[in-house]
Amino acid sequence: MKKPTIAVSVGDLNGVGIEIALKAHTEISKLCHPIYCINKEILTQACRLLKCELPKDFQLHKVAGSLTIEPGKTTKESGRYSYDSFMAAVKLCEEKRADAVVTLPIHKEAWMMAGLEYKGHTDLLRKHFNKEAIMMLGCPQMFVALFTEHIPLKDVASSIQYDKLKEFFMDLHNSIQKPQIAVLGLNPHAGDNGVLGNEELIIKEAIKNANEEIGFKQFVGPVVPDVAFAPYFKDNYNYFVAMYHDQGLAPLKALYFDESVNISLNLPIIRTSVDHGTAFDIAYKNKANILSYINAVSSAIKLMQE
Amino acid sequence: MKKPTIAVSVGDLNGVGIEIALKAHTEISKLCHPIYCINKEILTQACRLLKCELPKDFQLHKVAGSLTIEPGKTTKESGRYSYDSFMAAVKLCEEKRADAVVTLPIHKEAWMMAGLEYKGHTDLLRKHFNKEAIMMLGCPQMFVALFTEHIPLKDVASSIQYDKLKEFFMDLHNSIQKPQIAVLGLNPHAGDNGVLGNEELIIKEAIKNANEEIGFKQFVGPVVPDVAFAPYFKDNYNYFVAMYHDQGLAPLKALYFDESVNISLNLPIIRTSVDHGTAFDIAYKNKANILSYINAVSSAIKLMQE
Repeated sequence: MKKPTIAVSVGDLNGVGIEIALKAHTEISKLCHPIYCINKEILTQACRLLKCELPKDFQLHKVAGSLTIEPGKTTKESGRYSYDSFMAAVKLCEEKRADAVVTLPIHKEAWMMAGLEYKGHTDLLRKHFNKEAIMMLGCPQMFVALFTEHIPLKDVASSIQYDKLKEFFMDLHNSIQKPQIAVLGLNPHAGDNGVLGNEELIIKEAIKNANEEIGFKQFVGPVVPDVAFAPYFKDNYNYFVAMYHDQGLAPLKALYFDESVNISLNLPIIRTSVDHGTAFDIAYKNKANILSYINAVSSAIKLMQE
Repeated sequence: MKKPTIAVSVGDLNGVGIEIALKAHTEISKLCHPIYCINKEILTQACRLLKCELPKDFQLHKVAGSLTIEPGKTTKESGRYSYDSFMAAVKLCEEKRADAVVTLPIHKEAWMMAGLEYKGHTDLLRKHFNKEAIMMLGCPQMFVALFTEHIPLKDVASSIQYDKLKEFFMDLHNSIQKPQIAVLGLNPHAGDNGVLGNEELIIKEAIKNANEEIGFKQFVGPVVPDVAFAPYFKDNYNYFVAMYHDQGLAPLKALYFDESVNISLNLPIIRTSVDHGTAFDIAYKNKANILSYINAVSSAIKLMQE
């Protein structure tokens, strides 16, 4: 099988992103052809600061601009360049010259200083493609897609609406076409036949009709939430849908805190990201952990195959 | 230190309880003096069915009654006897002849057949002592006490009330006096300074005033729920308070499904229990797992020391 091509956006150059990309290059080159969205002059600066040689097979996609790297500093220039690197990577995918984008962390304040009014990568992607991205977190052992994200707990139950849920399932199916996906109930014991809540009736109906439209039983549930991640159940599935933020992310982070990555689905391109920030405090100190980045790459590849 | 004395109620004799008690006897005798609430004639029947010898140091507390063991059957007689065994164990504690009760599983239908109108051990204890038991689940690495239990998710946010929460903290303190206890927030990111909900203000106030009354900072929080069980945070605490059922139990069962036990706090006695049922399908087949029982015993002992 031909290795997929991955466009890597280098993130804020005053943070740990470029160090991670250089350190992990040999390992991720076993999985894919990485193309790094940065220009040679800036990359050479980074190598000098890191006291490392530039790997010979480090393929660049030139992103114009000049910049003096200032480790750990929030600057307008580094904000602008991380945005340009990201948009260049997105374009490579749009033009089919890459199969996915993997993003290293940007710094939101640096974006603000550069006059960029996005809350982050996902917000920018939503606006760029004018589509509702689905947020999924996890690692190859366990991914959790969130039906509701950043809303107060008191608003969760009333958000369980048939139309939105059915659409969510169909959107998720477009990104993850074959594997079975376990859908959590909302209430303790998945409602215990209505004694502890009845939103499970809505979830059940949306699952049934989505499966009919898809043509096979891709969505399974509603599953009793507190046993969904116990080994005897969890080990049968790689994908889960949580009805709300902490229902999915508390078990995920209990099991796979360091390994997890952040994924945007339901977009015209595949995009995965490390699940950590710029770590300005350890920038250019050869201390950054590459695990989340490697999983971001392998998760992007896994998604291409689903 | 003198070994504590533990009264063991044998559960439904047509299930796996007595097999577990016999199989684990040598191991738990290293931790405590167990007193088994059963009479010799019935125990002899059980040993015959299990083809095992009665351990010489198996101390009995006679519970009157006769019964023919019928593996895997739900009977009025076994229901009645499991109730009598439990009440005998509770009495040993009330009379200070034992330091804690550890219960093996009863069968609720068998209780119904015997005309006993309790939903289970905890319900019976609430009525017997006329006190609101606190439900805590876990194992020595991680215990979670539940502020709300079996209610629909839509009712959780409105249940976060200052008076009840403060009382809950004080009741919990009476059972667990010294260790620090991490209290989870209700909302994603613990409300993110009010952007994602403001019940954390109530939780914060209740924590502050409970700590003042207790005299030290026993309760810590509100903690961001989805990172509370990630290793870097979790490893600092043995005790957690979850605001609702799945917030605590989904991470617990993700990490410690087989090891967990069920504990009733805020009662005049200490009571722990295995977190599984009578397993009628494998009764008297030498297949029962003793891990949850051993943890129920060690958890009872840990609680005596806190």
